[in-house]
Amino acid sequence: MQIVNNIAVLKLLVRQARSNGQSIGFVPTMGYLHEGHLQLVRQAALENELVVMSIFVNPLQFGPSEDFEKYPRNEAADIEMAANAGCHIVFIPTSKEMYPKGFDSYVDVQGITTTLCGAARPGHFRGVATVVMKLFNLVAPTRAYFGQKDAQQALVIQKMANDLNMDLEIVVVPTVREPDGLAMSSRNAYLSADERKSAAILYQSLTAAKAKIMQGLNDPKQIVALIKSMIQSEPLAVVEYVEVVSADDLKEFEQELQSRVLIALAVRFGKTRLIDNMIIDLEA
Amino acid sequence: MQIVNNIAVLKLLVRQARSNGQSIGFVPTMGYLHEGHLQLVRQAALENELVVMSIFVNPLQFGPSEDFEKYPRNEAADIEMAANAGCHIVFIPTSKEMYPKGFDSYVDVQGITTTLCGAARPGHFRGVATVVMKLFNLVAPTRAYFGQKDAQQALVIQKMANDLNMDLEIVVVPTVREPDGLAMSSRNAYLSADERKSAAILYQSLTAAKAKIMQGLNDPKQIVALIKSMIQSEPLAVVEYVEVVSADDLKEFEQELQSRVLIALAVRFGKTRLIDNMIIDLEA
Repeated sequence: MQIVNNIAVLKLLVRQARSNGQSIGFVPTMGYLHEGHLQLVRQAALENELVVMSIFVNPLQFGPSEDFEKYPRNEAADIEMAANAGCHIVFIPTSKEMYPKGFDSYVDVQGITTTLCGAARPGHFRGVATVVMKLFNLVAPTRAYFGQKDAQQALVIQKMANDLNMDLEIVVVPTVREPDGLAMSSRNAYLSADERKSAAILYQSLTAAKAKIMQGLNDPKQIVALIKSMIQSEPLAVVEYVEVVSADDLKEFEQELQSRVLIALAVRFGKTRLIDNMIIDLEA
Repeated sequence: MQIVNNIAVLKLLVRQARSNGQSIGFVPTMGYLHEGHLQLVRQAALENELVVMSIFVNPLQFGPSEDFEKYPRNEAADIEMAANAGCHIVFIPTSKEMYPKGFDSYVDVQGITTTLCGAARPGHFRGVATVVMKLFNLVAPTRAYFGQKDAQQALVIQKMANDLNMDLEIVVVPTVREPDGLAMSSRNAYLSADERKSAAILYQSLTAAKAKIMQGLNDPKQIVALIKSMIQSEPLAVVEYVEVVSADDLKEFEQELQSRVLIALAVRFGKTRLIDNMIIDLEA
């Protein structure tokens, strides 16, 4: 596996691959890799001839009071894990390489970025869309891989790619979970032992809600109430949001659930903010 | 020359050309072609194997009180002129093809878009950057050609391409002028005979200012005053702005002119708004 820190070298390697007619699978990450990321790499390796991963803790997507500085980093471990999962090139730029002095261009996906995580994290999705646009332009991927855990992020990227006519396929890969159901996340490392134990309630509440929906419950308000009451039974959990919306455009249902339903939530355990979600396809 | 109205067909043709290893020169326009546009096509034809032009009056870059509806259009003449100048593919999409229902992603270049035309036309450069990003993604050009007449636009596109790591070369082509010096523009068609005659003052004032600078005048305020007084000698002319700024970043000079100087102006003749500019390289 090649480790690249610099844009000029990355472009050279990518150009070479393209001129050889190779397909490129791309996995953008913020590092501190876990099984969720590795699953993206493995799927990229199955579907493409060349697999590129980026590791970049993107300052642009963190708010001023968020955890940019203390976001967990472990470059050596990441490199080994990426190589073992089938990655061929790992791109690890500095902030200065990505945002040189005078940088001042941004990609704004509107509408779907104002709800859920976008409501609590203003500017977050602008930072995500901008860095992903840059990385897409640098890597020129045939396919790019994102985890379903960040459901809204995957929708924002797909919408950006559609609206701006980007020539690539966005592949969304199912969430990888711990044995107790907790969605894998680099931020799980922040949790104390007690918080870690309590955090299992997120998946439990999503599963319970799904079961109720499959039994015929179709009032979004009742589903939200059910999930909130389950989560609030854990004293360490503080709900930021629980929403039941259309999985296609994040719009609220007027009355009854329809077609593809996204249940999404963000919950704080101490200073740690975790998100999770589940999609229920009523037409399947 | 092939006339393409639809994105799927354009992508097919572009993909074919790329896989044959052809270089692509791209000339984005709003149609109602004149010699300025044709000069871009001719240069693109000299430097690339395939030349693609787009003709699209982009609603996103017009303000609500601007001339989108009455912007001049003549598709039949445009097609003939483009073909004769060496264009191979002309892409003429509908607004619906470019901005389907639900479209909601935008490219924002900040900083350099707040002065000059950006000050008088809020949202204009966001519309320009967004449509050009879309067209660049559709056409995948090796080089894209813009006229120096729209100096700020060329800078915005170059900055967008740099900041967002777009893999193409931006080529800026000198302004083509009428015999009396008036910069070619589709909007010249709006002018009455008297206004058309008066409009020659724009180039005259720029040329006079350049002569003064070459003679040693280096106070931006005095240069602005000189140009304004010349333009105001024409009773039909109403100055919107005259600015003397750095040609690289549009910043004002603290005291004296330095390195590359841009003199830019926007002037109204009746309802018609014309722009023009001149670059003076003090280091040349």
